Amino acid sequence: MTAESIRRLFEQVRQGKLSPDDAVSRLRHLPFEDLGFAKVDHHRVLRVGIPEVVFGEGKTPTHMAQIFARLASHGGNLLATRTRPDQFAAVKQTVPKAEYRELARAIVLRRDRKKYGKGIVAVVSAGTSDIPVAEEALVTAEVMGNDVEHLYDVGVAGIHRLLSNRERLTRARVVIVCAGMEGALPSVVGGLLGVPVIAVPTSVGYGASFKGLAALLGMMNSCASNVSVVNIDNGFGAGYVASLINRL
Amino acid sequence: MTAESIRRLFEQVRQGKLSPDDAVSRLRHLPFEDLGFAKVDHHRVLRVGIPEVVFGEGKTPTHMAQIFARLASHGGNLLATRTRPDQFAAVKQTVPKAEYRELARAIVLRRDRKKYGKGIVAVVSAGTSDIPVAEEALVTAEVMGNDVEHLYDVGVAGIHRLLSNRERLTRARVVIVCAGMEGALPSVVGGLLGVPVIAVPTSVGYGASFKGLAALLGMMNSCASNVSVVNIDNGFGAGYVASLINRL
Amino acid sequence: MTAESIRRLFEQVRQGKLSPDDAVSRLRHLPFEDLGFAKVDHHRVLRVGIPEVVFGEGKTPTHMAQIFARLASHGGNLLATRTRPDQFAAVKQTVPKAEYRELARAIVLRRDRKKYGKGIVAVVSAGTSDIPVAEEALVTAEVMGNDVEHLYDVGVAGIHRLLSNRERLTRARVVIVCAGMEGALPSVVGGLLGVPVIAVPTSVGYGASFKGLAALLGMMNSCASNVSVVNIDNGFGAGYVASLINRL
Amino acid sequence: MTAESIRRLFEQVRQGKLSPDDAVSRLRHLPFEDLGFAKVDHHRVLRVGIPEVVFGEGKTPTHMAQIFARLASHGGNLLATRTRPDQFAAVKQTVPKAEYRELARAIVLRRDRKKYGKGIVAVVSAGTSDIPVAEEALVTAEVMGNDVEHLYDVGVAGIHRLLSNRERLTRARVVIVCAGMEGALPSVVGGLLGVPVIAVPTSVGYGASFKGLAALLGMMNSCASNVSVVNIDNGFGAGYVASLINRL
Amino acid sequence: MTAESIRRLFEQVRQGKLSPDDAVSRLRHLPFEDLGFAKVDHHRVLRVGIPEVVFGEGKTPTHMAQIFARLASHGGNLLATRTRPDQFAAVKQTVPKAEYRELARAIVLRRDRKKYGKGIVAVVSAGTSDIPVAEEALVTAEVMGNDVEHLYDVGVAGIHRLLSNRERLTRARVVIVCAGMEGALPSVVGGLLGVPVIAVPTSVGYGASFKGLAALLGMMNSCASNVSVVNIDNGFGAGYVASLINRL
Amino acid sequence: MTAESIRRLFEQVRQGKLSPDDAVSRLRHLPFEDLGFAKVDHHRVLRVGIPEVVFGEGKTPTHMAQIFARLASHGGNLLATRTRPDQFAAVKQTVPKAEYRELARAIVLRRDRKKYGKGIVAVVSAGTSDIPVAEEALVTAEVMGNDVEHLYDVGVAGIHRLLSNRERLTRARVVIVCAGMEGALPSVVGGLLGVPVIAVPTSVGYGASFKGLAALLGMMNSCASNVSVVNIDNGFGAGYVASLINRL
Amino acid sequence: MTAESIRRLFEQVRQGKLSPDDAVSRLRHLPFEDLGFAKVDHHRVLRVGIPEVVFGEGKTPTHMAQIFARLASHGGNLLATRTRPDQFAAVKQTVPKAEYRELARAIVLRRDRKKYGKGIVAVVSAGTSDIPVAEEALVTAEVMGNDVEHLYDVGVAGIHRLLSNRERLTRARVVIVCAGMEGALPSVVGGLLGVPVIAVPTSVGYGASFKGLAALLGMMNSCASNVSVVNIDNGFGAGYVASLINRL
Amino acid sequence: MTAESIRRLFEQVRQGKLSPDDAVSRLRHLPFEDLGFAKVDHHRVLRVGIPEVVFGEGKTPTHMAQIFARLASHGGNLLATRTRPDQFAAVKQTVPKAEYRELARAIVLRRDRKKYGKGIVAVVSAGTSDIPVAEEALVTAEVMGNDVEHLYDVGVAGIHRLLSNRERLTRARVVIVCAGMEGALPSVVGGLLGVPVIAVPTSVGYGASFKGLAALLGMMNSCASNVSVVNIDNGFGAGYVASLINRL
Repeated sequence: MTAESIRRLFEQVRQGKLSPDDAVSRLRHLPFEDLGFAKVDHHRVLRVGIPEVVFGEGKTPTHMAQIFARLASHGGNLLATRTRPDQFAAVKQTVPKAEYRELARAIVLRRDRKKYGKGIVAVVSAGTSDIPVAEEALVTAEVMGNDVEHLYDVGVAGIHRLLSNRERLTRARVVIVCAGMEGALPSVVGGLLGVPVIAVPTSVGYGASFKGLAALLGMMNSCASNVSVVNIDNGFGAGYVASLINRL
Repeated sequence: MTAESIRRLFEQVRQGKLSPDDAVSRLRHLPFEDLGFAKVDHHRVLRVGIPEVVFGEGKTPTHMAQIFARLASHGGNLLATRTRPDQFAAVKQTVPKAEYRELARAIVLRRDRKKYGKGIVAVVSAGTSDIPVAEEALVTAEVMGNDVEHLYDVGVAGIHRLLSNRERLTRARVVIVCAGMEGALPSVVGGLLGVPVIAVPTSVGYGASFKGLAALLGMMNSCASNVSVVNIDNGFGAGYVASLINRL
Repeated sequence: MTAESIRRLFEQVRQGKLSPDDAVSRLRHLPFEDLGFAKVDHHRVLRVGIPEVVFGEGKTPTHMAQIFARLASHGGNLLATRTRPDQFAAVKQTVPKAEYRELARAIVLRRDRKKYGKGIVAVVSAGTSDIPVAEEALVTAEVMGNDVEHLYDVGVAGIHRLLSNRERLTRARVVIVCAGMEGALPSVVGGLLGVPVIAVPTSVGYGASFKGLAALLGMMNSCASNVSVVNIDNGFGAGYVASLINRL
Repeated sequence: MTAESIRRLFEQVRQGKLSPDDAVSRLRHLPFEDLGFAKVDHHRVLRVGIPEVVFGEGKTPTHMAQIFARLASHGGNLLATRTRPDQFAAVKQTVPKAEYRELARAIVLRRDRKKYGKGIVAVVSAGTSDIPVAEEALVTAEVMGNDVEHLYDVGVAGIHRLLSNRERLTRARVVIVCAGMEGALPSVVGGLLGVPVIAVPTSVGYGASFKGLAALLGMMNSCASNVSVVNIDNGFGAGYVASLINRL
Repeated sequence: MTAESIRRLFEQVRQGKLSPDDAVSRLRHLPFEDLGFAKVDHHRVLRVGIPEVVFGEGKTPTHMAQIFARLASHGGNLLATRTRPDQFAAVKQTVPKAEYRELARAIVLRRDRKKYGKGIVAVVSAGTSDIPVAEEALVTAEVMGNDVEHLYDVGVAGIHRLLSNRERLTRARVVIVCAGMEGALPSVVGGLLGVPVIAVPTSVGYGASFKGLAALLGMMNSCASNVSVVNIDNGFGAGYVASLINRL
Repeated sequence: MTAESIRRLFEQVRQGKLSPDDAVSRLRHLPFEDLGFAKVDHHRVLRVGIPEVVFGEGKTPTHMAQIFARLASHGGNLLATRTRPDQFAAVKQTVPKAEYRELARAIVLRRDRKKYGKGIVAVVSAGTSDIPVAEEALVTAEVMGNDVEHLYDVGVAGIHRLLSNRERLTRARVVIVCAGMEGALPSVVGGLLGVPVIAVPTSVGYGASFKGLAALLGMMNSCASNVSVVNIDNGFGAGYVASLINRL
Repeated sequence: MTAESIRRLFEQVRQGKLSPDDAVSRLRHLPFEDLGFAKVDHHRVLRVGIPEVVFGEGKTPTHMAQIFARLASHGGNLLATRTRPDQFAAVKQTVPKAEYRELARAIVLRRDRKKYGKGIVAVVSAGTSDIPVAEEALVTAEVMGNDVEHLYDVGVAGIHRLLSNRERLTRARVVIVCAGMEGALPSVVGGLLGVPVIAVPTSVGYGASFKGLAALLGMMNSCASNVSVVNIDNGFGAGYVASLINRL
Repeated sequence: MTAESIRRLFEQVRQGKLSPDDAVSRLRHLPFEDLGFAKVDHHRVLRVGIPEVVFGEGKTPTHMAQIFARLASHGGNLLATRTRPDQFAAVKQTVPKAEYRELARAIVLRRDRKKYGKGIVAVVSAGTSDIPVAEEALVTAEVMGNDVEHLYDVGVAGIHRLLSNRERLTRARVVIVCAGMEGALPSVVGGLLGVPVIAVPTSVGYGASFKGLAALLGMMNSCASNVSVVNIDNGFGAGYVASLINRL
């Protein structure tokens, strides 16, 4: 990790083996990484509490188990999203401490249980079909060291269920809202609260929902100013952004 | 309006001037309208309380004044939508009793003030920019003989304003909801009420609202089952449908 | 269902155990539901003749049977849409009185056979492929207590079939029209009648039908003013809206 | 126009000045046009009754007058589409026999009045706003030597107006149908007749008509098998195709 | 088929049993079909050489065989499009004279072999993957009594193959052009010929072809004026339109 | 603001003028707002440092001046976005302390200059054309009491300019990134930093940028997990969200 | 390949058996190909180092093996893209020297190993999921006789990995960049280099990536001027274009 | 331009004033640019023959004149695209040697007239309306030091005009093809030639051309493998890419 080649350049200059001009010229031809910028890339693993993440979709159980085992050897927490039970079965054999979060379709290896988040990350979802996405957000926030709370099945067509739970929501420092179909929930939640709201459109719906496009457009046009949006079904991204906010 | 030519056919048969066979043959070649189907087309004017309607956009003041004056001669109420003040000025000269409904951008000639609707048609709008569309719906319902009530600026990001007025809404027999941007309001209103809700997406918004497409898709995917939708900015259509429902 | 906690507050004030000021302050912290707004949510089941509804797609037979049995214990009618025969088989075992409406792909438990609708709900469809959606609308209207009538396979390219049945349609108080491909039928039906028309675009078609988008756009732009639209393939929504209208 | 250079090649071979082999080799290097394929391009002007056509949009009056005058010198009929009155004023000065067809927004110079079409080309339009496109189709068919007939304002929401004129339509050999909004008219007309129907979507409408896209998609999905479609607002193309068909 | 009830009306009037006024009144309540408009619908089967058509997609072999056998009993030619070999096997058992046109995925029963078309219908396709659509067009034209000719695999990226066959194409009275991907072929063919060209976009391609949308848009914007377009993959429609044209 | 009517209810109960049961019953019919939920709506103005906001587009100078003056009377900061110089001139006359932020097209009245944000909000933009949106974000963050810093014209095609300023960016607690065209900048910035990134697609570009859609889609699909997105050109929303985050 | 029929024409003229006029006339009716234009089409195989190419998708193993064997008999290199292992197994039996390039999903028969490219073609990809497309580009460039180099998994969210390899990229004469999701990589690479960059959007991603549309639009709007784009997932096309450039 | 601060670091080490370890540590905190990467950004101006470029759209004449004059002081060629005559008038006053290329809507200052391109860049356009885009490409290629040739108005509907000029095209080393409407020309040109083809979709067309989208999609799906595509109307980008290729 240390830029040994650079140090050697300076050493040679100190020893008079190399003129400053030649040193500058050589410096220019060193690989970029040696210049110390490598740390840019590794901030993910170096920074405490940020898990390594595997995207499970399309991977064979064997392949998943290999990747998971390799990353597990790095230490820290580990999260695999969009996984299937057969992938977990394979992972379990090589990494026995891995757990399966079924609703979230996530494989989790949690070794660092320190709380990095300063408050609560709340996850709200409109309908029961949105739960897999909501749970992915929830698990991500948990693995990244947050206290989490969830409030599911509070769609806008039954607004009182949401309002009945307003008190719970006001305790959160940042709120994730998952909704498909018309994607209206983040606007309502955003209007009730004074904290940042991360909206996740889901592909739940049919016909003119166009696989989440309707919800996405709805959320982009939210009349609540405290709403920002991540990709359709991207529970992980929402959990990640919320975790970063909750550490501030 | 009477099918004189058909009657004449029968008369000729009665007088023996025409055989039944020849009459059948001639009947087939009569213009369709004479067969009595004309009434299909004229049900609009014949049925009480349905106004004749002019679409104002793109018409010169002179042209508008001519059409308006001609239709005014038919009797009954008269409604011109999407009009401009200069069009009204021209209309006013030939039809002095015409009124201008500025917010609705509508010219109205109201002679028949009978109530055809059995209850209240309520018009709800999300933001102040939606008011022109909401007012077009309101004026249409009025001209078609309904008691109307409006509730404006009750967008979902300030849900309590809507809830505070829940009582008023529950008095309506049919509700029209106009909203741009994310178009979420019809779902919330639909969830609060047990009556038909006509949703009108408006072109209010910018960027990813795509001139009302976001609101349209949102409303098509409403999680409230009592919502049906008309075209973007089609306040007239919503008022028309609501009026038909309110007559039942 | 009664707001016992509120009553208790008042009782304490009456008994002098609590000052009005303290009572106001406590009132603010009571759960929302206790304030009596819970009834908002329950209007569905409380109002006579509105069935509970399950969306069948993606559910396992076992899961469907469990949900169905649980809801059946609430009393009233029960409707499961977008179901498959294997789901019905499972339901049948726990709820023997459930029936399968094959064309509509619906499971129905009908215990309340009272007529809530005042007139006839007519369901019209353009082609034979639109029948599943049309039947879903029909079954919904039936379960919600309406006299129903249907008129299938009367697409606009054979306009006389529709016209031949004009008389039957004019008896309806509200009409549902299901059409895929170019989605033109609601405009023609709307032009023939003076009652509200609920249009249902279907995903029937190929190529440039884009899974119902062509029909949806066509219906949104209907030149008949008495047409409003629900989501693609949303027969249930159309039946629901029509039933609410028919009760007025 | 004759392939003089080729003839010369053969002449040289005949006179023994060139061997066959050298002639073949030279032939290969002759410009393509000399090989007689030029006629491909010129079939337009060579074939009787096909006018030269200018697209007027975006041209200055002066530019339009120049082009028109130059083409007028070729003989035959001449058609400028999408023109404005100021363009016509300029054209009129250099080509006094030019006429302005105001509804069609077309400038016409008609010298060849022979009938090339064997029957009637009928032009049908749904609403009054579709008339400019319909007239462009009509003028095109006239200039190309057809007997034409028109039937305007027969939209599907007032189906009887169309049916009343069925007899007139059945006299046509080919029918052009122009419609905006939901674009349903071609399907109905196509279903009534046994001849080819050319459908022209127009940009008439607002909101979800998306400048003619709704009508275009509707027509592409027509359930009448005798319908084919041209571009939005392309009255000229429809008139052109219909004219070619009517010559057969 | 005869309007017996109408004749009887006239007979009663002739015999003085009914006054002309009462007859007119009764006439209005007769079913539409009795008025002689029924023939509108039946023009398809009555007109010689127009086959009855079944759309095969999604039908079980048994269902297909039943429909096919029933229609076969009407006489005339019979065409089933988008069929599979297992459907044909079932059809073959009940209608032994049915043939399978494998490339076209069509089942054909051809009893009327009269030529109704006056010239040749040519079918051109861009790539080998477009052949199923092209063959559907070809078979349709054949079954409708046309001399057909085909020219396949003459895409625009190898323009000389098309040009080499120009002579053959010029013999056709109407030309069908099938192309996927960029859909450019109809423009080139249209430019070479002076006859109507029916363009069929196909769903051949990947990525930005968006299942035929790219080809469809390309063809709608063809710079050749003699091109009109049918739906994506709609070989049948193209064959049908071309056949109608070729009869003129 | 105090729920006087509720207090009165309790007082009446205390005085024995009203039974608890009757009080509960009356409570249910009180306007919603009296129940104390009004504070939900007013959290915006009540919470320190949140300005009132006017959307300037489409307002006449007079109208803008009236609204601005009225809101100015409420105290606190005031922000008008998407304004024009003529609107500012009118505002200036009634609210002399208002300032015009030309690049941001914003009118600002800043009375509360307290710092509510705990760190720096950085605003990054890709090209010079994105500056108006970036400045709107910047002004919003300033008016909401944040230390701000900007870094403009650091588009991804000249990546070194961004990298040269990496140090400055790492000082920020939350970063706003505005970019049009391909919208790639948020991904690169997100990859460099470990804090939340708010991405704002701008409508800068032409052709296939489709008024910001390309940038919007790009940002939704960002491969950097710390990115969330607001509407096209919504600098205000980004500044608002960033300010809420910076207060945490 | 020789235009024997033309030569014979000249011979007949030379021998006086045919007049030059008649020869010209006959020439016009010769098949196009005889005129020597056939070479246009065959430039592909005639030009050294351009392989024949088979598109594997949808072909049965048997069919693939037949085509492959037939083309193999022509000599030169041979490439089958989008193939599956079972197709390769079949090919291997008839063409034992064929190799399977698994990552690229390509079957290759390489007989001509001459270098036609003058420099290096570099292939860069953003994520590991883009590798199949990148490898297809790489294999294409190899089979067309280029030195190739690849640089994978250098997405913009970890920009230093790309920068660390800048030196390697600057050695390339033309660079292919494959990226899904937001498709930002070509802009960054384009900004770093002064050579042509061929961008390949991939269908990698989910939700708002819309199967590569987001990446495609992003690349079309690249702010780097040296970027041009091919179809989604079209690694072959990119390799082909790059190879043509590298030969210059 | 020299990394003076780095040299000074080495000098201090040489003089023993700084230990190698401290030097490494300081190096890390130096601004990025000092590390010599600045040259990355400046490659544009440093590399011979690459002009500086201004995008004229939306700039006032005064602003344009200022920018142009400032850039002119840098030496080298200068190009302003999408300019208007009034902008040129202002530029002309401060930079008298600037020329206006009217068809290309470009202002050019050409001081370096050296040829950097090794062969001919040919620019082909489909219709006369495409010429502004084609000329922008042509001027760009000229200013970048290429021999250029153009071939306009050779659309695919008159294919012989293109074929007649095949010889001229085969002389080009790289070809730019501009086309609107169906965008088919690049496929045809690509099929005729063995060199790279840069396709430019133009916004020429109406209706279903959707401002160039149809042409863009067509070109992305080109069946000619040597075609790559730039943004709609991006003549500059095409000229730039072609120039880079022509230097190789």
